[in-house]
Amino acid sequence: MTSPTDQTGETPLLLKVLAGETTARPPVWFMRQAGRYLPEYRALRAEAPDFIAFCLNPGMAAEATLQPMRRFGFDAAIVFADILLIPRALGQDVWFETGEGPRLGALPVIGRMEELAAGAGEHLHQVGETLSRVRAELEPERALIGFAGAPWTVATYMLDGEHRTIGKGERAQARAYAYREPEKVDALLDVLVEATARYLKMQADAGAQVLKIFESWAEGLPDDLFERLVLKPHQALVARTRELGVTVPLIGFPRGSAALAERYAAECDLQAVALDTACPLEVGKRVQAIKPIQGALDPLLLLTGGEALDRRVDQLMEAWGQGPWIFNLGHGITPEVPIAHVEQVLKRIGAQ
Amino acid sequence: MTSPTDQTGETPLLLKVLAGETTARPPVWFMRQAGRYLPEYRALRAEAPDFIAFCLNPGMAAEATLQPMRRFGFDAAIVFADILLIPRALGQDVWFETGEGPRLGALPVIGRMEELAAGAGEHLHQVGETLSRVRAELEPERALIGFAGAPWTVATYMLDGEHRTIGKGERAQARAYAYREPEKVDALLDVLVEATARYLKMQADAGAQVLKIFESWAEGLPDDLFERLVLKPHQALVARTRELGVTVPLIGFPRGSAALAERYAAECDLQAVALDTACPLEVGKRVQAIKPIQGALDPLLLLTGGEALDRRVDQLMEAWGQGPWIFNLGHGITPEVPIAHVEQVLKRIGAQ
Repeated sequence: MTSPTDQTGETPLLLKVLAGETTARPPVWFMRQAGRYLPEYRALRAEAPDFIAFCLNPGMAAEATLQPMRRFGFDAAIVFADILLIPRALGQDVWFETGEGPRLGALPVIGRMEELAAGAGEHLHQVGETLSRVRAELEPERALIGFAGAPWTVATYMLDGEHRTIGKGERAQARAYAYREPEKVDALLDVLVEATARYLKMQADAGAQVLKIFESWAEGLPDDLFERLVLKPHQALVARTRELGVTVPLIGFPRGSAALAERYAAECDLQAVALDTACPLEVGKRVQAIKPIQGALDPLLLLTGGEALDRRVDQLMEAWGQGPWIFNLGHGITPEVPIAHVEQVLKRIGAQ
Repeated sequence: MTSPTDQTGETPLLLKVLAGETTARPPVWFMRQAGRYLPEYRALRAEAPDFIAFCLNPGMAAEATLQPMRRFGFDAAIVFADILLIPRALGQDVWFETGEGPRLGALPVIGRMEELAAGAGEHLHQVGETLSRVRAELEPERALIGFAGAPWTVATYMLDGEHRTIGKGERAQARAYAYREPEKVDALLDVLVEATARYLKMQADAGAQVLKIFESWAEGLPDDLFERLVLKPHQALVARTRELGVTVPLIGFPRGSAALAERYAAECDLQAVALDTACPLEVGKRVQAIKPIQGALDPLLLLTGGEALDRRVDQLMEAWGQGPWIFNLGHGITPEVPIAHVEQVLKRIGAQ
């Protein structure tokens, strides 16, 4: 791994930006860049129908990680894995049913999860093997990203395993639970902080040069809950990760909370904040004054393409191109996205 | 109707706040205060299984409107109706299937909808009759609110009738459509502005003292789309409503766009801005410096109750009670809400 201060020309653009540098063009990668919109991914996935087994097969997961790198030459690869590997490491059953979202078994007792948390990294060693394999094949100027789901987001799924009857959808259920049984939810978040820090440490040791924390369900939270369920656990996770000796830059992604993005950037000691589709350009600029940002093209524009796509890419370049910025989507690529539209974006920003 | 400047003591609190006054306690009403959490509502609804027929039956709709007023003495009644009455007035079929959301037929051609738009008020005269009946029974110190769905929100449903195959959910479909066929979507929004202005005018003539514009799907829009699909149509709707002679105060509710709420408040010439559950208290204060606000208790707290509910009510009082503020939820009441929790809130704010 080359360091951000390396001047040989091989320092990945992504690491330069994460060190606070403004680059001539933004480094670019896309959330879910390895995925169903790629025919080669669909072919690979067909060989391993079980999704968890696919994620935990280092050969297949490394191949999935590398496919979009070969095709598009993105500036970063992100390890192919799933945020629901952590519940498995904590003893909760996780499975996927075709055409539906993930399903989880009953929540293990807190004491048992506490015992398992320290071993989360070892338990998920296959993800480390995937990272090592990818790093061995990746050009030095491409960065390798590891990731984990943030504690609250993972908790929403874990709690859903037990509580299927309150309100609409697992987020509402988990939020109601956070109000109803605060001690239990806070204890679960503590366990998740520990397990996630260990998991991230293992990924950094295996070759991840950047770590991203995905808070997919920061959306819709009142500010008191945002503070309790997102901000504090992220602060604890960053602190614990550093305590374990991790030195690589961290990106936080509190999706759906643009009105709190500046506060998050100011109060959370990570290196960059990823913004989502609905983050106004002006808010992004204010966050960028605090630390590097990542985002935030609407993935639906990638679906529809045309002049509207070019126009929005130009707006983003105009608004955020004068500061440290990683070009990305505001949400993951959808399976229907035409490959030509991905190429259109890369050309437009001068990355291809 | 008493005017906001009337000093007889019968001026509804709600109208005082909408005139910019800070009241000793905030007026309070709840979104979906007439609804399934009330046993008397469930009994009434059982008499008319078809939801549209129920909305268009002035006797039943007036009764539904008045039920929560009798039980709780809220400071305002909101006419029982549905945002999907407008598509019907424009010639599009709308029906409800049990256990599912609304269904809409194919979108009529723009020219035909343009012809029908001017008659939207007359077409929906039953809603006016409901308002008249409610006003006749309501104490003078209670305000009566009329409402309509905002153009973009109504458009998302109307467009969904045709486009069921793109991405997830009708919002993503409609947003993709807004990118793909901007002229058609913009023309639809123009039609909706005209029809909605006529509908609101009819409601004001029938006795509505306040009109609320519900933009339920402002959520998740990038700022360029927010400007095009929300801000501009709201500005046009306010202007057209005034042009038609409507003088009552207007409340706008751009749900899910807290990061753009200040901009909305500053650039949209309506009298108050309703905030949703995820609007941070600090953002609410900044909006309140521009104009009166409404909101924004998490309806899930109303579900779970307890000390957490009291604590959040106190936080809202502390943050927003020193300026013009209408106490409300950040989203509608869910059917499972216990009546005792509604009473708990009303007592806590001194309204019962």
